[in-house]
Amino acid sequence: MTRFRKGDAGRWEGIDPEPYDAGGSDDPEAPFRGVSRQRLFGPEEGLDAALRYFEVEPGGWTALERHRHAHAVVVVRGRGAALVAPEVREVAPFDLVRVPPGTWHQLRAADDAPLGFLCLVDAERDRPERAGPDDVEALRADPRVAAFLRP
Amino acid sequence: MTRFRKGDAGRWEGIDPEPYDAGGSDDPEAPFRGVSRQRLFGPEEGLDAALRYFEVEPGGWTALERHRHAHAVVVVRGRGAALVAPEVREVAPFDLVRVPPGTWHQLRAADDAPLGFLCLVDAERDRPERAGPDDVEALRADPRVAAFLRP
Repeated sequence: MTRFRKGDAGRWEGIDPEPYDAGGSDDPEAPFRGVSRQRLFGPEEGLDAALRYFEVEPGGWTALERHRHAHAVVVVRGRGAALVAPEVREVAPFDLVRVPPGTWHQLRAADDAPLGFLCLVDAERDRPERAGPDDVEALRADPRVAAFLRP
Repeated sequence: MTRFRKGDAGRWEGIDPEPYDAGGSDDPEAPFRGVSRQRLFGPEEGLDAALRYFEVEPGGWTALERHRHAHAVVVVRGRGAALVAPEVREVAPFDLVRVPPGTWHQLRAADDAPLGFLCLVDAERDRPERAGPDDVEALRADPRVAAFLRP
């Protein structure tokens, strides 16, 4: 049982990045780009939740998705923007982002800075639904969202 | 539903500190000193866990306690030390501290700096057991722990 780990955001001793998704790609049409994930805590004895650290490279983005479980996000490094449809906000340390159940969401790093954030979820949760072309078209009806999603 | 909150560690808009414990005191014999708590997330729809931010004033300490649930701690501000018996470590941002079930633990701020940390717990959890005189005496048998606990 490791009780202590020295670390800086994104660089914890003994915690390697896990694949964010098996479908990673540099394709600009890919559902995400430049995202790494590290599992910091849980699920484990006495804790039925998990705390993960995600870091998005400058110019990168997470998948546009929704699910029945909630996300609780604490930004801890860099700069970027978050979509929690239909709201869009710029984010920086230590802003909080709540993603309610069933809400389309995506995080983007700034073009010139990474975006690092903690994300809390229940250990038992449903799988995300990725946005399809019809979903994206519907989201683009809001000009703020369209500007966030970019071409 | 508030989706975004601007903030810096310890200063989030619209999130007031809650009492850390009804028995707060400036008595040096008190079980804790100079601790504030803010509930950042949960429990809420889609999330059966809670993320709290604790800040310990310079020279302060949290209660020496144990419980069956685990704590998952991410230090985000200042400096201090943590006891996860029998281990003691100095901590700084973004060190991780895992408190396994049934383990006596306490966090102290440095004398000249606060200590701010996020603490993740399950929403459903047992109440902490505070250390009594016999527990403290047993813990002091380890010189590293005795040095942490101080007189």
